[in-house]
Amino acid sequence: MISFRNDYAQGAHPAVLDALLRTNLESTPGYGEDRYCQQAAQTVRSRFACPQADVHFLVGGTQTNFTAIAAFLRPWEAVIAADTGHIAVHETGAVEARGHKVLTAPHVNGKLTPEAIREVCAAHAAGNPGHMVLPKMVYISDATELGTIYSKIELEALRTVCDQLGLYLYLDGARMGAALTAEGNDLLPKDFPRLCDAFYIGGTKNGLLFGECLVIVNQALRPNFRFALKQGGGMLAKGRLLGLQFQAILENDLWLKLARHANFQAQRLQAGVLQAGYSLYISSPTNQIFPIFSKEKLARLEQSFSFEFTQRIDESHDAIRLVTSWATEPTWVDAFLAAI
Amino acid sequence: MISFRNDYAQGAHPAVLDALLRTNLESTPGYGEDRYCQQAAQTVRSRFACPQADVHFLVGGTQTNFTAIAAFLRPWEAVIAADTGHIAVHETGAVEARGHKVLTAPHVNGKLTPEAIREVCAAHAAGNPGHMVLPKMVYISDATELGTIYSKIELEALRTVCDQLGLYLYLDGARMGAALTAEGNDLLPKDFPRLCDAFYIGGTKNGLLFGECLVIVNQALRPNFRFALKQGGGMLAKGRLLGLQFQAILENDLWLKLARHANFQAQRLQAGVLQAGYSLYISSPTNQIFPIFSKEKLARLEQSFSFEFTQRIDESHDAIRLVTSWATEPTWVDAFLAAI
Amino acid sequence: MISFRNDYAQGAHPAVLDALLRTNLESTPGYGEDRYCQQAAQTVRSRFACPQADVHFLVGGTQTNFTAIAAFLRPWEAVIAADTGHIAVHETGAVEARGHKVLTAPHVNGKLTPEAIREVCAAHAAGNPGHMVLPKMVYISDATELGTIYSKIELEALRTVCDQLGLYLYLDGARMGAALTAEGNDLLPKDFPRLCDAFYIGGTKNGLLFGECLVIVNQALRPNFRFALKQGGGMLAKGRLLGLQFQAILENDLWLKLARHANFQAQRLQAGVLQAGYSLYISSPTNQIFPIFSKEKLARLEQSFSFEFTQRIDESHDAIRLVTSWATEPTWVDAFLAAI
Amino acid sequence: MISFRNDYAQGAHPAVLDALLRTNLESTPGYGEDRYCQQAAQTVRSRFACPQADVHFLVGGTQTNFTAIAAFLRPWEAVIAADTGHIAVHETGAVEARGHKVLTAPHVNGKLTPEAIREVCAAHAAGNPGHMVLPKMVYISDATELGTIYSKIELEALRTVCDQLGLYLYLDGARMGAALTAEGNDLLPKDFPRLCDAFYIGGTKNGLLFGECLVIVNQALRPNFRFALKQGGGMLAKGRLLGLQFQAILENDLWLKLARHANFQAQRLQAGVLQAGYSLYISSPTNQIFPIFSKEKLARLEQSFSFEFTQRIDESHDAIRLVTSWATEPTWVDAFLAAI
Repeated sequence: MISFRNDYAQGAHPAVLDALLRTNLESTPGYGEDRYCQQAAQTVRSRFACPQADVHFLVGGTQTNFTAIAAFLRPWEAVIAADTGHIAVHETGAVEARGHKVLTAPHVNGKLTPEAIREVCAAHAAGNPGHMVLPKMVYISDATELGTIYSKIELEALRTVCDQLGLYLYLDGARMGAALTAEGNDLLPKDFPRLCDAFYIGGTKNGLLFGECLVIVNQALRPNFRFALKQGGGMLAKGRLLGLQFQAILENDLWLKLARHANFQAQRLQAGVLQAGYSLYISSPTNQIFPIFSKEKLARLEQSFSFEFTQRIDESHDAIRLVTSWATEPTWVDAFLAAI
Repeated sequence: MISFRNDYAQGAHPAVLDALLRTNLESTPGYGEDRYCQQAAQTVRSRFACPQADVHFLVGGTQTNFTAIAAFLRPWEAVIAADTGHIAVHETGAVEARGHKVLTAPHVNGKLTPEAIREVCAAHAAGNPGHMVLPKMVYISDATELGTIYSKIELEALRTVCDQLGLYLYLDGARMGAALTAEGNDLLPKDFPRLCDAFYIGGTKNGLLFGECLVIVNQALRPNFRFALKQGGGMLAKGRLLGLQFQAILENDLWLKLARHANFQAQRLQAGVLQAGYSLYISSPTNQIFPIFSKEKLARLEQSFSFEFTQRIDESHDAIRLVTSWATEPTWVDAFLAAI
Repeated sequence: MISFRNDYAQGAHPAVLDALLRTNLESTPGYGEDRYCQQAAQTVRSRFACPQADVHFLVGGTQTNFTAIAAFLRPWEAVIAADTGHIAVHETGAVEARGHKVLTAPHVNGKLTPEAIREVCAAHAAGNPGHMVLPKMVYISDATELGTIYSKIELEALRTVCDQLGLYLYLDGARMGAALTAEGNDLLPKDFPRLCDAFYIGGTKNGLLFGECLVIVNQALRPNFRFALKQGGGMLAKGRLLGLQFQAILENDLWLKLARHANFQAQRLQAGVLQAGYSLYISSPTNQIFPIFSKEKLARLEQSFSFEFTQRIDESHDAIRLVTSWATEPTWVDAFLAAI
Repeated sequence: MISFRNDYAQGAHPAVLDALLRTNLESTPGYGEDRYCQQAAQTVRSRFACPQADVHFLVGGTQTNFTAIAAFLRPWEAVIAADTGHIAVHETGAVEARGHKVLTAPHVNGKLTPEAIREVCAAHAAGNPGHMVLPKMVYISDATELGTIYSKIELEALRTVCDQLGLYLYLDGARMGAALTAEGNDLLPKDFPRLCDAFYIGGTKNGLLFGECLVIVNQALRPNFRFALKQGGGMLAKGRLLGLQFQAILENDLWLKLARHANFQAQRLQAGVLQAGYSLYISSPTNQIFPIFSKEKLARLEQSFSFEFTQRIDESHDAIRLVTSWATEPTWVDAFLAAI
């Protein structure tokens, strides 16, 4: 059984494991206050050109999102997300469990638009202040849940609308590596701290055993964040495991190399699917693609490949999601294209 | 610098790392729905003689505590803990952040007593129902924050009072291995599901990279727990890492062997300290000990050893905490005893 | 300035004030444990034919909604509401502040449909359990935010879908009096406990100084509700004020008489507006109506009448909301119709 | 049956009712945006010499406390209260339900001391930042739960310690009238805004049907408070009822006259009890007193008087609480003193 189910089906890249093995018996302080975390934080600040930013390492994406949002917002403030956004749909109400409403706006190719943000804010500015939540943060993902990416001009436009409306811009980079190495991308690492108040660099979906790196740029959002980290369950006892892993993939831009591999295999799949005459639910330049097959075909494919259902298309057709990772073997792609 | 600072200063036991390395490139379903988690859960059910229990794997202790408590209690229900309890002091209000009051009672050697529980409940039963929180759960740790352990008769007495007062009994086993292998312990693994509604088996402090194993015995507390897991940020994407690690230490009772080693080294420290004429803040049979030294002596010791301050004793003396682990070298203990 | 702004612009009906004055110097127990609350609860049980139901009196609608929802749901459970629903839009995220997601579905004339509920539940049943919130409650209002009402067949259909999908049905009756006395209504008070798990009877918008009466029919939702009441700030010290006021309007069905008056005056407005050639944003049989006027006309009307803006229609036209109450003078309606 | 059970057993002072009756049929904007609330807010600012303060009117004390605390604190911040404090004991965990830990310190005559605050803060400053909650607010009541009052020098000392430790000082004035008119009091209304960051003036226990007036002095705590008000269920639809009632008791200092009457009758009770040879649980200068009687005597007293049990003293004696109000008839006191 070949898995295109997700980008966290395997363990870690060998370079990551090496870093853990090499240091296994060293004694270091806990909770991220060790030299490896400090080094990795410094590497992040340097690679992303944000020498003043606060850098925190957490275990998972849902945890990072709810911890950041709960720390940044006041009780009556809400976060705006695309209706396909991860926090809106796939985090079991974790943001609401910490007290905040997620306001959704219709996505365009998985992306949030300045117009949609303006509409949400306008609707909430009507009437007497106090009777509706106060929109205060914009949440986006790059790459998005549909595999699409933001262009520099799009991200700058979001920054502009956030500045105009007094909103924080927070970027979920669970698949930031895939976005940065996608065909058509014109964003650079240094653009994220320039345009966002905070963002996170995904590790789990890009070669780590686990780990997400939260970068807080806006000075107003930094104080006492370690309290939020502990309260949210995100302060790992053996914190150095996070620093070591991130350092391992940031060195020599291994993270981009891994993401490029994943994208390349996914794009081989997407091209092959199109060439074979099938259509797509949406065209994606990253490591998630969304082909449409007949139910009959899917029944046969499921005998050799695992993947997730995305959307019913019509009575006899469904869209599925195929995901590749740093560990995807080219022969797996060959096998899939041969099978369709 | 030799570290007696905590039991999570090093990485993982080689058997644990081997398990991760051996399976690194396998593709498995995410979120704990893989065969390694299933196998480890089965091993837990078997080793703890609770064939019907639900077994969940989480990353850390604070996360496990707040997720379980938030899932088990209704909004107005409270949890009773010793005033030294981890949830009461050292989790940055994580339980309160999910809406529940932690009612504290004075500890006796780090332990909660039936009398203290009865008193809290009696105080909350006075007056009209509804004006005070409703005590509904007892939280204890074995070993405790002070390194002490519960005897079978003590744990049975807590069960009895919980039955009488309609309380759940929840046991934080972050250091369960140390408790079960301590001199004087008469509890067996099978006693925990017999006497507790839920408990967790600590991995982080006993040879894993990370991981806690929550066992839910009480049938009423089981439904939909995976929703709570996800909402609390405790559902690890590469969930198999948890199953693999727990399976590695449960096989051949490696967890008890590791804990026995830690206890043995700590007891060598405690005996040596006493023999050298120093006194103890509290006598502990497990892997945390609490000697008292003069501030002068501590200043000198700090040049070669790292440890935590526990309590001011008088103008010129402090109690400190020395913690050992599976990775503590006997020569470290020798060196400390030579230095005092 | 004549107010059609809302149905809480004036004080209380004289019969309500009389009840308060008559008993002002009596000494009674606090927090709703007095004989007047007991009597009013008994009257409610009798008038609504639910002899076993629990009856609680609260001060306001937002308070009643969030207290009930927080008490009824587990942390990962969500409530489904129309996208126009009061809890979804106009309660400043009070439900989310207590930890629960409000899932919205497109309204049809302000109403939630069985089809919309089925769609929300189907979307949340896809994929692995635990990654999305669990829909567990349906929230509706009768009359709705758009003044429309549910027919008996519609409410029965909602009950059926709730039974099929394991959902609670909760009805916000802030304007229940208006609904029950509207032309076309075929629901009776006894239908609410028959079809709903819980509902509230609005007092604030129907002649009381303040007060909402929550009726909990489903036995599983009743235990310990007074704890929720106190925790939510809804347990009034001089609780008898609530019992006295509700008793005053329930006696001789004064509540229906007051609502009928409000409806009658609103329907005079609606008929007059139509007769004068204006159109409606939506046709409503209750005490809120939604005429469309040109901005010029509105500018002139605002000099003598106060009302709320509802919706921009086009460049030169807006829909407004006119609300009547038990205290609306027929001459106010005459004046408005003369002015248009 | 004569009630000494509490100070909210009766309705409202006639001047309060007159204000409601006189304006009953007027139409005003809702939610506290009417001229009566504006006038009352202005009266408060003037009477308390805080021309810049924000003034909000809420319905009840628990609601006021949790709304203010939730609005003022960040998620990891905690509030320090005496172990007898109302928020610590008698609000069903309402503060925790909004996410905040209440740290308790031993009371001295019902009061919190600078030393106790320093100790709590010192204990929470030990160790690494982030692992314990951050104390950020001091909560006190004047008069306290035991009827005692703070002197000016005591309140100034609390302000000093708050300034030194970076804490907000919040004062629950549910019985502020009783405190200000007690023998031995040297605080003036103008001292509260001078020394507190926020405080509330109690109405429910001093002649209103209901109502508490929150005064926010610290500019940093003011923005967007109306959102918190609505979210907490504290924004009364017919908000003018609150402004009207407060204006009625603030005019000509009626609030102090009513409190003085209550104190006078309670002090007659206390003096009579002492003169008859009974002892007190604590000596109180305000409208709550705490005599000790034999259980036999209490059994007889309960046939004619209602009161609350406070504390078991020994096998045969209990302390009870007797509370007087603006509505307590002198003959009730005569009757009680005759009966003992």
